[in-house]
Amino acid sequence: MFSSLPRRVSVYEVSPRDGLQNEKNVVSLEAKVDLVRALAGAGLAKIEATSFVAKDWIPQLADADELVPRLASLEKDGSPTFTALVPNLRGLERAKAAGLREIAFFMSASETHNHKNTNKSIADSLAVFAELVPVAKSAGIRVRAYLSTLWGCPYEGAVDPHRALEIAVELRDVGAYRISLGDTIGCGTPAQTDAILRLFSSRIPVDLLAMHMHDTRGTALANVLVGLENGVTELDAAVGGLGGCPYAPGAAGNLATEDLVYMLHGMGIETGIDLEKLISAASLAEKIVGRSLPGKVHQAGADILRRAAVRPGPQT
Amino acid sequence: MFSSLPRRVSVYEVSPRDGLQNEKNVVSLEAKVDLVRALAGAGLAKIEATSFVAKDWIPQLADADELVPRLASLEKDGSPTFTALVPNLRGLERAKAAGLREIAFFMSASETHNHKNTNKSIADSLAVFAELVPVAKSAGIRVRAYLSTLWGCPYEGAVDPHRALEIAVELRDVGAYRISLGDTIGCGTPAQTDAILRLFSSRIPVDLLAMHMHDTRGTALANVLVGLENGVTELDAAVGGLGGCPYAPGAAGNLATEDLVYMLHGMGIETGIDLEKLISAASLAEKIVGRSLPGKVHQAGADILRRAAVRPGPQT
Repeated sequence: MFSSLPRRVSVYEVSPRDGLQNEKNVVSLEAKVDLVRALAGAGLAKIEATSFVAKDWIPQLADADELVPRLASLEKDGSPTFTALVPNLRGLERAKAAGLREIAFFMSASETHNHKNTNKSIADSLAVFAELVPVAKSAGIRVRAYLSTLWGCPYEGAVDPHRALEIAVELRDVGAYRISLGDTIGCGTPAQTDAILRLFSSRIPVDLLAMHMHDTRGTALANVLVGLENGVTELDAAVGGLGGCPYAPGAAGNLATEDLVYMLHGMGIETGIDLEKLISAASLAEKIVGRSLPGKVHQAGADILRRAAVRPGPQT
Repeated sequence: MFSSLPRRVSVYEVSPRDGLQNEKNVVSLEAKVDLVRALAGAGLAKIEATSFVAKDWIPQLADADELVPRLASLEKDGSPTFTALVPNLRGLERAKAAGLREIAFFMSASETHNHKNTNKSIADSLAVFAELVPVAKSAGIRVRAYLSTLWGCPYEGAVDPHRALEIAVELRDVGAYRISLGDTIGCGTPAQTDAILRLFSSRIPVDLLAMHMHDTRGTALANVLVGLENGVTELDAAVGGLGGCPYAPGAAGNLATEDLVYMLHGMGIETGIDLEKLISAASLAEKIVGRSLPGKVHQAGADILRRAAVRPGPQT
């Protein structure tokens, strides 16, 4: 069944943004720099560092204008690429002033979620995007786009993938260099994922697509496997599984980067990431946010030897 | 890619045995009956209730001789089938006296783990099995066999699947009605799983195989997906993900039954299980063991509506 797996996959790290924005406590600027340094040191080549949204909306990320310039020293020979969430022209100006060469726009595939998340209709979000892209491009800034709630919406339930595809085609036509398809609430299952990816790749080359899976119901890696079989080569993840909702303790958030990398490496797929260093970064993330994180490989370790030795019963 | 998925899958519930044997505290007989009642009420048709090993080895399951007769009243029209782990003729006599019609034998695919787990060589375990099966059959008792550490051994590391296959063939030839292939330490990844299942199904009909995956590194559902694509139709799981090692808090144990069932139902695969009742059983399991369990669907809920509504940031 694995005749067509990609040889190499890019991991797009979202923990400093999609993770820390959901933490109850605001993490200090220094701790953020430490976390990003650890992630860069582990070999992550693309890191979404923060968000240039209104400061009073997400106080957790209100230091974006200071953080991004601090990260420049972590870049070596152009890697990692840092990026940030940008909702509009004002955010783009801040991202540009901070020195970013890449930004990420976000919108949803369901009308209600898009409204709750951006205070706009889908049509209005697309209009903002059309306004944003030429300005970004003329400043030498690439634009990635998130299309969220594609697997399901917390307000509407099922989402029509055909309508979502029309949005994605427009994002691509307007100039997104990549479209990250989001299972925002982590409800997707593999047959659905296969159907979505087959549909999308009928109109959009698969190398323009990424997957942004949340592991809320434990299905993220199974969905990623389907993505790999469909030729997807960019996968979003957050170290430790940061991004869980702090109001539902224990509930998982983003797919944990170390779990993803463990699976990819186990399948012989290259990532350029040092898994042991990534596990250390997950431990650092736990220390920074002051709670244990749901990712599994950082708890169990990647090394299989001796790990079951202490268990008492007949182990099956 | 999903042309050949099974229409229906049997879930083999192991929480009362593989779960409770690993709990630090001994759970009362009444609480065990309550848990099994909840599992049976959710529609689980096969439940491994306990273990007839030496009582001083696993004090958590020392009440096996009392528990099994108590469960008889939960059976209705032959469902659920109750079973128990049995290591030898003495255990078989106890299982028979308690009224079981099915037992499970266990051995490992790696020599060191088999020795640590059973105090026997693989050859000696096979000899015990050969002694056990005719006695069981003559008493009208079916025998299932576990072949553990097939994906990796905590003492030896890599395990030779060809040698494991020879063991499995012998278990089948001697009379196991099903062989449950175990990723005991949860280290497996999908390409490995595909290779193992292709190899095994070249010599053993796939409907004689089951999979027993631990979710220690988050890959259990992805491996199960590969199993489904290879035609496996019996899957072991433990409600809530019970079975984690109590000495490594947070580390996941068995694949959580509710996560498995969520994925299967999402793919249109029938199980006969009521997911909402199963989630209630997971909550009961948490209450009984006095700690939160790692399964995700019982935390997030199966219903996708409104679940993300409380999160603060732009959600991708």
